[in-house]
Amino acid sequence: MRPSQRSADQLRAISITRNYTKHAEGSVLIECGDTKVICTASIDEKVPPFLRGKGQGWVTAEYGMLPRSTGSRMDREAARGKQSGRTQEIQRLIGRSLRSVVDLKKLGERTIQIDCDVIQADGGTRTASITGAFVALHDAVSLLLKKELLAASPLTDFVAAISVGVYRGVPVLDLDYAEDSDCDTDMNVVMTGSGGFVEVQGTAEGVPFSRGEMEALLDLAQSGIGQLVAQQKTALGV
Amino acid sequence: MRPSQRSADQLRAISITRNYTKHAEGSVLIECGDTKVICTASIDEKVPPFLRGKGQGWVTAEYGMLPRSTGSRMDREAARGKQSGRTQEIQRLIGRSLRSVVDLKKLGERTIQIDCDVIQADGGTRTASITGAFVALHDAVSLLLKKELLAASPLTDFVAAISVGVYRGVPVLDLDYAEDSDCDTDMNVVMTGSGGFVEVQGTAEGVPFSRGEMEALLDLAQSGIGQLVAQQKTALGV
Amino acid sequence: MRPSQRSADQLRAISITRNYTKHAEGSVLIECGDTKVICTASIDEKVPPFLRGKGQGWVTAEYGMLPRSTGSRMDREAARGKQSGRTQEIQRLIGRSLRSVVDLKKLGERTIQIDCDVIQADGGTRTASITGAFVALHDAVSLLLKKELLAASPLTDFVAAISVGVYRGVPVLDLDYAEDSDCDTDMNVVMTGSGGFVEVQGTAEGVPFSRGEMEALLDLAQSGIGQLVAQQKTALGV
Amino acid sequence: MRPSQRSADQLRAISITRNYTKHAEGSVLIECGDTKVICTASIDEKVPPFLRGKGQGWVTAEYGMLPRSTGSRMDREAARGKQSGRTQEIQRLIGRSLRSVVDLKKLGERTIQIDCDVIQADGGTRTASITGAFVALHDAVSLLLKKELLAASPLTDFVAAISVGVYRGVPVLDLDYAEDSDCDTDMNVVMTGSGGFVEVQGTAEGVPFSRGEMEALLDLAQSGIGQLVAQQKTALGV
Amino acid sequence: MRPSQRSADQLRAISITRNYTKHAEGSVLIECGDTKVICTASIDEKVPPFLRGKGQGWVTAEYGMLPRSTGSRMDREAARGKQSGRTQEIQRLIGRSLRSVVDLKKLGERTIQIDCDVIQADGGTRTASITGAFVALHDAVSLLLKKELLAASPLTDFVAAISVGVYRGVPVLDLDYAEDSDCDTDMNVVMTGSGGFVEVQGTAEGVPFSRGEMEALLDLAQSGIGQLVAQQKTALGV
Amino acid sequence: MRPSQRSADQLRAISITRNYTKHAEGSVLIECGDTKVICTASIDEKVPPFLRGKGQGWVTAEYGMLPRSTGSRMDREAARGKQSGRTQEIQRLIGRSLRSVVDLKKLGERTIQIDCDVIQADGGTRTASITGAFVALHDAVSLLLKKELLAASPLTDFVAAISVGVYRGVPVLDLDYAEDSDCDTDMNVVMTGSGGFVEVQGTAEGVPFSRGEMEALLDLAQSGIGQLVAQQKTALGV
Repeated sequence: MRPSQRSADQLRAISITRNYTKHAEGSVLIECGDTKVICTASIDEKVPPFLRGKGQGWVTAEYGMLPRSTGSRMDREAARGKQSGRTQEIQRLIGRSLRSVVDLKKLGERTIQIDCDVIQADGGTRTASITGAFVALHDAVSLLLKKELLAASPLTDFVAAISVGVYRGVPVLDLDYAEDSDCDTDMNVVMTGSGGFVEVQGTAEGVPFSRGEMEALLDLAQSGIGQLVAQQKTALGV
Repeated sequence: MRPSQRSADQLRAISITRNYTKHAEGSVLIECGDTKVICTASIDEKVPPFLRGKGQGWVTAEYGMLPRSTGSRMDREAARGKQSGRTQEIQRLIGRSLRSVVDLKKLGERTIQIDCDVIQADGGTRTASITGAFVALHDAVSLLLKKELLAASPLTDFVAAISVGVYRGVPVLDLDYAEDSDCDTDMNVVMTGSGGFVEVQGTAEGVPFSRGEMEALLDLAQSGIGQLVAQQKTALGV
Repeated sequence: MRPSQRSADQLRAISITRNYTKHAEGSVLIECGDTKVICTASIDEKVPPFLRGKGQGWVTAEYGMLPRSTGSRMDREAARGKQSGRTQEIQRLIGRSLRSVVDLKKLGERTIQIDCDVIQADGGTRTASITGAFVALHDAVSLLLKKELLAASPLTDFVAAISVGVYRGVPVLDLDYAEDSDCDTDMNVVMTGSGGFVEVQGTAEGVPFSRGEMEALLDLAQSGIGQLVAQQKTALGV
Repeated sequence: MRPSQRSADQLRAISITRNYTKHAEGSVLIECGDTKVICTASIDEKVPPFLRGKGQGWVTAEYGMLPRSTGSRMDREAARGKQSGRTQEIQRLIGRSLRSVVDLKKLGERTIQIDCDVIQADGGTRTASITGAFVALHDAVSLLLKKELLAASPLTDFVAAISVGVYRGVPVLDLDYAEDSDCDTDMNVVMTGSGGFVEVQGTAEGVPFSRGEMEALLDLAQSGIGQLVAQQKTALGV
Repeated sequence: MRPSQRSADQLRAISITRNYTKHAEGSVLIECGDTKVICTASIDEKVPPFLRGKGQGWVTAEYGMLPRSTGSRMDREAARGKQSGRTQEIQRLIGRSLRSVVDLKKLGERTIQIDCDVIQADGGTRTASITGAFVALHDAVSLLLKKELLAASPLTDFVAAISVGVYRGVPVLDLDYAEDSDCDTDMNVVMTGSGGFVEVQGTAEGVPFSRGEMEALLDLAQSGIGQLVAQQKTALGV
Repeated sequence: MRPSQRSADQLRAISITRNYTKHAEGSVLIECGDTKVICTASIDEKVPPFLRGKGQGWVTAEYGMLPRSTGSRMDREAARGKQSGRTQEIQRLIGRSLRSVVDLKKLGERTIQIDCDVIQADGGTRTASITGAFVALHDAVSLLLKKELLAASPLTDFVAAISVGVYRGVPVLDLDYAEDSDCDTDMNVVMTGSGGFVEVQGTAEGVPFSRGEMEALLDLAQSGIGQLVAQQKTALGV
């Protein structure tokens, strides 16, 4: 029995709100149950130094949590003077995941900077960030197309992410915080709309997991990501 | 003529939403026109080292802006590894303003930590933060009272803040970003519900201001803050 | 009764020593009672990146206190690895105040960097810094004129600063440390030689202040700054 | 054809040298082909603050690379003043992997601090670090047993790690640098001696990978880790 | 011919002003020609963590330069966020030098913190700092004796420092900036009042120096330090 | 009697292994008794900003210790976020020492970056670093000559370093850790192959040292460095 009464293969309610704030070229509020993340995409008409003059663009991401997005208040990273290892790991993951569906040559010498800021956390913030950030990225690209700064879209596919885990011995889809704090294995899976794997990151928190459990988790993830990509398409009207 | 068509003494539309996120003891979304700030109050049952054993509590504040809360993206302070001088100045102002209406002895040996995070900026983020943060603080205090951790409220008054300025030669109330970027004098005023001044911070951006202009600005501020405190009371149902 | 036996509207003894150290283009020791600050002005024939190619100059300031300028030793900011919020707030104030009387276009593409270093503190270090720094700035400008690097002075007025406050219920001029630690309201006022307000920063440390108190404080400040500007003129022989 | 002429399922030559330096409680040089890592285990008879008084121990890890362990010199992290996101990600992975085979209650209130320092890099430094660090940890535990500071070993299993990847369309075992720089998918797998999965981290660098490829990679990893655990046992004489 | 017209074995004019600022337990302005350093000694009735409970005291030092103490402005270390290697080297040297004449057991469990702040630099700032800091330390110790916090002085000797160098082939005493910038060898020597060597730090800036030159430099240093200690005694009236 | 049974003028066993790691242009493992340091030289075809366009090259050095190179584990400087004063002092010394035997004009507009990383420490790590680093530098220069990037060697001499000290009243050569922790005077001497002094850094840890002791220490150092330079020549086959 899951604390949320969901069945093992059931996602939380998903809501994707576009144009959530007014300044960014793409701005999305994604809600996965009680997890809420603002994802923005900002276009910058230059590339980082290591790419200058190489005829290609860049997509990168930063991630943050409001100090009281969580049950007990976390220190503000800006005040502590550095980002935690966890934060850096997550923002590297978001960036890699999005770049997997962007043809950087086609993007031209510009950067799309993604910001994912968690305003309320209830498990799965990194996967919600990826799923929401793709929609913000899509909106920013649409703007470039509309302004005729790009002739063709550099997006090669959709991308979304979900967590799966072994909770009290049972493989389940889309862990919320109560499950995440109490599970044996936690796995984050990033996949494209056409079903290719981009990232698989599984960690045994307690008992190591077996090959059989891994197969069951991958099955759940494939099913969940199919649903998420459908929601992205609905939100984008494509 | 103000860019927003408002009259000189007209506030922007204000909205105060309580219980905006679920974890914090007080959580408020304040919207002043297009400026939107999440203000949370977190109760911590200890005090900072400099107050230990002194039989009093503490109220302190931190402030941040999402990188794309603004027209062009700002660097993330957590990634740069330090808070700007402006950020520190603002969070010190918020903390002082709130403490002016708290009897710290009555609060007991605990800290209420305020976080003000701007999700969309259109001028007046520091004053909106103070006005919203007071409501979050009030909710956190109410919770302490309800849980009988406090016998009586340590709040001695209401507190709210507004900006005023000289825009194209005319003293006006509640500057938005378009006015703030183009005004001669910008003044932030913090006042209590009973009409006492807590902070007055006026800066001539261009031409110095006269004593007469200062009087006109203070008049506008007094009027605006009266309206804001009324809105706080409505929101709190008191 | 003020601890120093001064009347409510009486400044401390002021001394302004020009050419205090030998390397800087302007170098002033300002003494306001027991507060002593070395103010230097350094000419740098370039501007910060955000102003390059805009045909204007810049004036900026930094502030520091020697660790044992105070009654009990403060940590050295260079050793702690960062400047406090208070330091940043003060140096931003000094810079803004000086820029209010400089025509940056006329200054040309160069920076005048002000350094204010407190060697002994007894209240009012930020206002003494502004008053002394203007004299150092004036000397640096005179040198540019003498060397014919400037055809006309970019200085449009004098500028000086003073603190006022409500001490034991009485508005008083020029708080020393004993008064500053024990007052209800502390206000720093920056004005030009021709009587315009540049900055007004009033803070209620205890009881909020009334409109009437504010008027009395502004009257005192106007009187005090008149005397300070006269002293600056005497020191500069103009 | 692999650049190294190895067959797809062939590990590089492995060498594990115990007691490599004289001060540490466990000190191992592990060489996997041209990748060379010094792994030390240091016993500290206390635990980090978050574990004090909880009756359990801790195992944690840090990772570094000598600046010229790589083909072109990397900046020294100590000189830059911070560890990169990659470094933090790796040291978190090493720590989690080792803790998966330690009964922290049985370890008692002490910390075993692992340091993995790469003196020559040719791909697979994080997996070599895990494999070598386990041997250093085993030696440190043996010393605690020998000194009768522990009555029974807190180690519950062996743990080792290997990389696998899809190189030019073919799943291969144990990527060296030439392969790693030019592969489509890179996956790091950490397993226990008894065959449970501790970590699976797969990343598509280019084309997303299919479920079938993932199965082939996991097969290779299982085979490789079996061989590595055998080498650990030989080195330890158990 | 020395730029300053001094003979090879001639010190610059020395001036030692005690009680230079009012807050510190010892406060000295030392002037060696145009080099001017404020040296303060602050008593702190505790010791750093590594000495707690060991029944001994500590003497430590920090060093700084005002940004415009030099011919061209240096960055402020507090603003850059770290002390340079040179600064750290100098403050370690000052601390070691002073500790060489203090019986730390006799000092008791307290720290004397020395601060040396250069307000004008013309070569020899580190040696002037040591010579001046000893006088400040002596004053702080006298205060402890006078207050009967110490029964007997923990000072075992005097200590002073001077630079010597090979300037245009000639060994000379007490290098000023013009000589220091243009010499082949620069040596800082710290000696006790009774003639023992505490530190000798010689560096060939250009041509290596011979054993014969070293002997000549040590002779000059011994002579110079004798004069400095005499000046310290005169200043202290002992 | 020295703890190591060596005679007062006896060096520890020295071993110099060239080509120790495969990537660097010069890579040396130097072992002085139980002190082991990896010294690499990396060629970078540009110079630091302060030398751009001046027609000369640069040689600089960085130094580090593996956390468990010592008897008890030291904090990792990269994790603490800064290099200690000691580290900076040592790397500045290594850089100055090597530059004393390089004609920077002849080197051309390139940098040779030296890294000295201590993998096992038993006293004398800074002097071993200099002696080993010279051999790595020599190898890097030989590579530049072989590749005809340089027409003639910019090396003007050999350079090596050794520590000497007064141990239990007796001047001795080449202190190991046991002696270094328990000596009255510790002196590091850097000399060229032709016998010129480059650096002399003597510190009295306890009792100040006399002129006679200094002479004896310099004699020992001269003898030791002669032997080290011979070993460098043997290792280089020159």
